[in-house]
Amino acid sequence: MIEEKHINYLSSIVGNENIKSDKAHRIAYSYDATRERFEPDAVVFPRNEEDISKILKYCNEYKIVIVPRGAGSGFTGGALPSEGGISLCLERHMNKLIEIDMENMVGVVQPGLINMEFQKAVEEVGLFYPPDPASEDYSTLGGNVSENAGGMRAAKYGITKDYVVALRAVLPNGDIITCGKKTIKDVAGYNTAGILIASEGTLAVITEITLKLIPKPKFKQTYMGVFPDVNKAMNAVFKSLAQGANPVAMEFLDSLVIKALKQKFPNISLPENAGGILVGDVDGSSEAEINSQLETLKESFQNYGSTDFIIAKDLNEGSKLWFARRNASPATMIYGTKKLNEDISVPRSKLPEALDNIYAIGDKYGFNVPCFGHAGDGNIHVNVMVKDKKNEEEMEDGHKAIEEIFQMVVDMGGTLSGEHGIGLSKAPFMNIAFNNAELNLFKNIKKAFDPNNILNPHKMGL
Amino acid sequence: MIEEKHINYLSSIVGNENIKSDKAHRIAYSYDATRERFEPDAVVFPRNEEDISKILKYCNEYKIVIVPRGAGSGFTGGALPSEGGISLCLERHMNKLIEIDMENMVGVVQPGLINMEFQKAVEEVGLFYPPDPASEDYSTLGGNVSENAGGMRAAKYGITKDYVVALRAVLPNGDIITCGKKTIKDVAGYNTAGILIASEGTLAVITEITLKLIPKPKFKQTYMGVFPDVNKAMNAVFKSLAQGANPVAMEFLDSLVIKALKQKFPNISLPENAGGILVGDVDGSSEAEINSQLETLKESFQNYGSTDFIIAKDLNEGSKLWFARRNASPATMIYGTKKLNEDISVPRSKLPEALDNIYAIGDKYGFNVPCFGHAGDGNIHVNVMVKDKKNEEEMEDGHKAIEEIFQMVVDMGGTLSGEHGIGLSKAPFMNIAFNNAELNLFKNIKKAFDPNNILNPHKMGL
Repeated sequence: MIEEKHINYLSSIVGNENIKSDKAHRIAYSYDATRERFEPDAVVFPRNEEDISKILKYCNEYKIVIVPRGAGSGFTGGALPSEGGISLCLERHMNKLIEIDMENMVGVVQPGLINMEFQKAVEEVGLFYPPDPASEDYSTLGGNVSENAGGMRAAKYGITKDYVVALRAVLPNGDIITCGKKTIKDVAGYNTAGILIASEGTLAVITEITLKLIPKPKFKQTYMGVFPDVNKAMNAVFKSLAQGANPVAMEFLDSLVIKALKQKFPNISLPENAGGILVGDVDGSSEAEINSQLETLKESFQNYGSTDFIIAKDLNEGSKLWFARRNASPATMIYGTKKLNEDISVPRSKLPEALDNIYAIGDKYGFNVPCFGHAGDGNIHVNVMVKDKKNEEEMEDGHKAIEEIFQMVVDMGGTLSGEHGIGLSKAPFMNIAFNNAELNLFKNIKKAFDPNNILNPHKMGL
Repeated sequence: MIEEKHINYLSSIVGNENIKSDKAHRIAYSYDATRERFEPDAVVFPRNEEDISKILKYCNEYKIVIVPRGAGSGFTGGALPSEGGISLCLERHMNKLIEIDMENMVGVVQPGLINMEFQKAVEEVGLFYPPDPASEDYSTLGGNVSENAGGMRAAKYGITKDYVVALRAVLPNGDIITCGKKTIKDVAGYNTAGILIASEGTLAVITEITLKLIPKPKFKQTYMGVFPDVNKAMNAVFKSLAQGANPVAMEFLDSLVIKALKQKFPNISLPENAGGILVGDVDGSSEAEINSQLETLKESFQNYGSTDFIIAKDLNEGSKLWFARRNASPATMIYGTKKLNEDISVPRSKLPEALDNIYAIGDKYGFNVPCFGHAGDGNIHVNVMVKDKKNEEEMEDGHKAIEEIFQMVVDMGGTLSGEHGIGLSKAPFMNIAFNNAELNLFKNIKKAFDPNNILNPHKMGL
């Protein structure tokens, strides 16, 4: 436990009202979306960058562990204080939209601002911030940057890293740095913003984020391609994209997910005989552009075996088509009491093979493994469904299946995580994905920023 | 000088034919586009990654300096062996196009491949690699990545870093690492590719590059906007872009450049009374899209004071419009015998103010400072024209003017370099752009990769 004198000193920085070490607060900040629990010794709500600088400088001197935290919506435990210490909560005070700079088409925000609040604010002035992780309604932009969040629109618009123009951050020794400027080009010095993105709060505490904005596309329409099986659908994904299709999103549902949706939502309108579905939006600056996009998709899907291509007539019909995708995750719970879900990513051309292999691994251990996700960028949400989570043997088999899936994915040139990061949950698998030289380099980078290892220690297997 | 035994050992790795320490070779590899000269002790032409790994491991053990080199077309001395040692030349053997992966829309290349060769190869199969630095005909992709090269098309398509999907590299200790995969998303481990981009050969030797490709736009057209003065033109840049214009390029010429072009090329067809010019291309997947783009630009330019808007009827007319921009650099030599040229970058909205300030600094010291460049991304090529380069006092004033320009640019949120990097030339100005914490962090990052400081030492002010 952290000593009383440290609590007192930190109080003198942020004020009594912004530091809590009572049991209720320690419990409230002990969890994230993994549902694992680790209580921090104290919860601190810094008011500004200066507070953060003072807190880090002090904690660095006394080697007190700091775990930065946004909304706690992460899937891999990045914000969990697994070794106790201070939970540094940025969502209470550090949550402001500082500026929408229309002239330079960037937004400047504090890390605790909710993604969706930012999206809404920029859309009100005719601009657009594309990264839209499924957690967009509650996850923070600081968390999005720290995990390099993706989302539905990544197929066309890329992911968080493609929108980070500049960062301000506090190093573990309390030093304040800026990484990048409000310029499109900047090649002076090392690309420190680049290394902070996806570093999961292990290198520095981000205090300000400058994000690129683009003009809001004027037109949008939803499509759905229906295939007899998921293999044909996956084949159509990379072939249609290689032929010039450029949809905002190309999401997929496999036959197990489709079956689950029909069972869970008996009134759902899903095509008969659909063994695989691709759903998404196209957008553009004119109706002609959209129609040409839809034509390209339709033709391409037909060439690769689709049985139907549905175009939504309006927004309402569009959201009906999206209903299936948005409810895929809860629907899978018909197959078990515990879901072991991972977010592997493969080169798009490997999607058909990857899914075949996933199902084969599921069969070997006797699991249903419904899959869905961001086919357009090769990112698959794999769900190994454990029927009885109290059955230790079954749980162990589930973890074995996951490990086999990771190995298979890495062998075909894919990665352990497309969006969720490594955190605690995937740390044991780092040596599947990286050789000793790479792991050693990660440790050296960590040490370059955080020689006393006070910032989110032991995450990412470090 | 490097000891004979080291030469012999390195010969045993690469073969006698791939290591040269005679005077002719040492002179041939002593220069780059800065025209400064530093002779290496020996020039080595590795045949493959394995050679590089062995060379680095050996040199690391004996603390022999290694300076990686592509085409030697850099503007800031990044490839100059300023402390002697080995010039590690990648353009002779490590220049292969390994693969164009149509299914995943990426190209895999060795670092010594010439940018234009790659562009041509991918365009032949209907794909497109946008980054097109002015040196595209001779600069290498390894150099482009190491300097994070920009180009004419950055306004719409971004710069080299936006296309690097994955890298392979050799660390100074000889370890081989991969950074990233052929996947769109990958958030496992630190973003080591991100930090190698723009690191100017100081952290690792890049041995393989995987680059994102996009479908080749079907239609393209050239436009030219004519303005009474450069201030109005610069104002139109950021305002038209904020209103949704999305040209491939938006290049500018100021009145001094226009005057120089008319003097140097008496037959050039440039509009009368042009005090500032914006020239570029628009592209798209349909003629309608292009026409709508041109309409937006024309309207927007008119709103901000243009006197004429010219649209090229065909490719031939397009290249006539481009002639002025392409010959801007040599034309400026009418103003002096020595050009001190820098490539500062500012937030686009600051372009008008930045140019006003640049001319004022020129006036103060009595220099013509013709400017041109990539207005669409805020990147200005500033040319302080020294009349008599043998006049030491004038040369010194020129350097003072440059330093004032750097300070002014940094004060308005800009950067020392948009494209050319820091290398040797801009190293003295690093403390204008970065605080001690940032400079210290750069040194720690350097040490994390290269503890013995053998790789391109003292570049970037490190």
